[in-house]
Amino acid sequence: MKPIPLIILWSFLATNATASWESLPESAPSPADNPTTAEKIELGKMLFFDPRFSATGTVSCFSCHNVMEGGDDHRSVSIGVHGQVGGRNAPTVWNAAFLSSQFWDGRAATLEEQAVGPVTNPIEMGMGSLDEALARLRAIPGYKQHFDNAFGAGDNVTMDNAAKAIAAYERTLITPNSPYDQYVNGDKDALSAKAIRGMDSFESVGCLSCHSGAAFNGPAMPAGAGFFVKFPIFEGKGDLDKFDLLADAGRFESTGIEADKHVWRVPTLRNLEFTAPYFHNGSAKSLDDAVLVMAQVQLNRDLERGQVADIVSFLESLTGEFPAQTMPRLPPTPGDLLD
Amino acid sequence: MKPIPLIILWSFLATNATASWESLPESAPSPADNPTTAEKIELGKMLFFDPRFSATGTVSCFSCHNVMEGGDDHRSVSIGVHGQVGGRNAPTVWNAAFLSSQFWDGRAATLEEQAVGPVTNPIEMGMGSLDEALARLRAIPGYKQHFDNAFGAGDNVTMDNAAKAIAAYERTLITPNSPYDQYVNGDKDALSAKAIRGMDSFESVGCLSCHSGAAFNGPAMPAGAGFFVKFPIFEGKGDLDKFDLLADAGRFESTGIEADKHVWRVPTLRNLEFTAPYFHNGSAKSLDDAVLVMAQVQLNRDLERGQVADIVSFLESLTGEFPAQTMPRLPPTPGDLLD
Repeated sequence: MKPIPLIILWSFLATNATASWESLPESAPSPADNPTTAEKIELGKMLFFDPRFSATGTVSCFSCHNVMEGGDDHRSVSIGVHGQVGGRNAPTVWNAAFLSSQFWDGRAATLEEQAVGPVTNPIEMGMGSLDEALARLRAIPGYKQHFDNAFGAGDNVTMDNAAKAIAAYERTLITPNSPYDQYVNGDKDALSAKAIRGMDSFESVGCLSCHSGAAFNGPAMPAGAGFFVKFPIFEGKGDLDKFDLLADAGRFESTGIEADKHVWRVPTLRNLEFTAPYFHNGSAKSLDDAVLVMAQVQLNRDLERGQVADIVSFLESLTGEFPAQTMPRLPPTPGDLLD
Repeated sequence: MKPIPLIILWSFLATNATASWESLPESAPSPADNPTTAEKIELGKMLFFDPRFSATGTVSCFSCHNVMEGGDDHRSVSIGVHGQVGGRNAPTVWNAAFLSSQFWDGRAATLEEQAVGPVTNPIEMGMGSLDEALARLRAIPGYKQHFDNAFGAGDNVTMDNAAKAIAAYERTLITPNSPYDQYVNGDKDALSAKAIRGMDSFESVGCLSCHSGAAFNGPAMPAGAGFFVKFPIFEGKGDLDKFDLLADAGRFESTGIEADKHVWRVPTLRNLEFTAPYFHNGSAKSLDDAVLVMAQVQLNRDLERGQVADIVSFLESLTGEFPAQTMPRLPPTPGDLLD
């Protein structure tokens, strides 16, 4: 094994030692080419909930990203059109606005880019092409006025604009003001003694090395520059077989680069209470399991039961306030839309 | 053929001649054993949108009864768990509170009775038994407080109470104040001349014989006493093959009674603009087709194109105001819920 250069070791430790705890912003920045407006949000919400852009007319963004709960789908791995079972656990859409890359393997740089991915994925929404999806969208006359409102009159019913609207809506899906946020903003009574012990352990054990920042998904990066880490790092744990962590090669599956094997984007830890089961394959059923396994395979540490309970208590304090939302009204369907 | 007793003929004609046009009430009555309360409505909305009571965790009431649009699912026939395709078109849940029986064949007397049907239907939600569904419900701790709020503290997390809550929510799904309603309530400018001609034709052609009442689903009946009519009555129309109206034996499928063959509950005509395609099998793609075919097979009449257009214009005036709704917040999922 090569020696670790001192400068890197120092910088790594220094990061830990001076870690600042960040609270979640109440709003997310929007990119220069897609400023957030009320009209885009409303259109984006309609599109997000609309199942008509899937092969069967039954699967929408909402199907796997249930914003009435944790922004995921309660399942280990997701189900798309025709009952097909996917390979990965649906990541939460809550606070995705703060992630610098999208999907478990970070293959989309932005929310706009992510939004169109599932449409043509054969086991997600299963449309033959984006053009087919666009034809569906144009065949629903009631959408035109909403595109005009959001993008100005003209030839504006495009996949690009649909993606922009969905991203604008997703940038409103933020859960601020968790007990943790209240605590770091100065209310020292917001966390229990147990959660505070867990917060200390979270830092001292080393979780914070990767799970830093306001959304606990790593340091702020430019859009598209994901924060990636190998998982698992320490593989030699026999009792970990049941979590089957090596079956999926992670980022390698999209890049084909050998160094990306079993490399993953660091996920947010916000609202974990709502997003069980855990890991890219949903193999960890409880937060206790997830914390134990992460410590073993990422930090090569066997945590004691009490310390796990403390850390779980801290993680539970990351559940924020889910904003009240009105349901969108979707325009009527022509009877031959799905033919 | 036996002569029709005069008294019945007279009463039939008299009904037509003195037909009163009814507007839709703004609220629906609730049964004595399930008074509507705000707490039940909120719980019922949660359950209505919750997909966790289906075998795969992907299908909820909302999946086939999309209250963000027409209260149905855009499809000819519905899709349930494992991508299985059902045999009938999803009836709208909007204004179902005014129907005296539920399902296309009226096999459920009340909204309460209807609500539990799809849960164990193998091609809808596909749970092995209602007990399994109840076990899921009880395994989500966050629901308990909502059952307490709705039904008082105690052993209240029951399928019976879940059904009551869903029915209470569904009784709020009413779309009053359509142009038609405004018109019959005195605003003579609320309908176009075309729609008024269509309204006259709707009566004179005979549509009103079956499609009477505030929801246009027939006369008010006691709960459970559905208003049933044979469909098609006149079968000898060669060009109707494409609508395949005889493949499904209708009410016979649930009662096994010979006289119930091809007998159906008369459906509401409210919000048809939002519920294409039409008929129990979704074979009519447009309102024009539906009106033409209904006149042919129920009234033995071939309508002229202009008269069809007038009637369609009238039917479009039955689109009411959909109440704004907030999204429910669903309680978190234990990671092993679906195992």
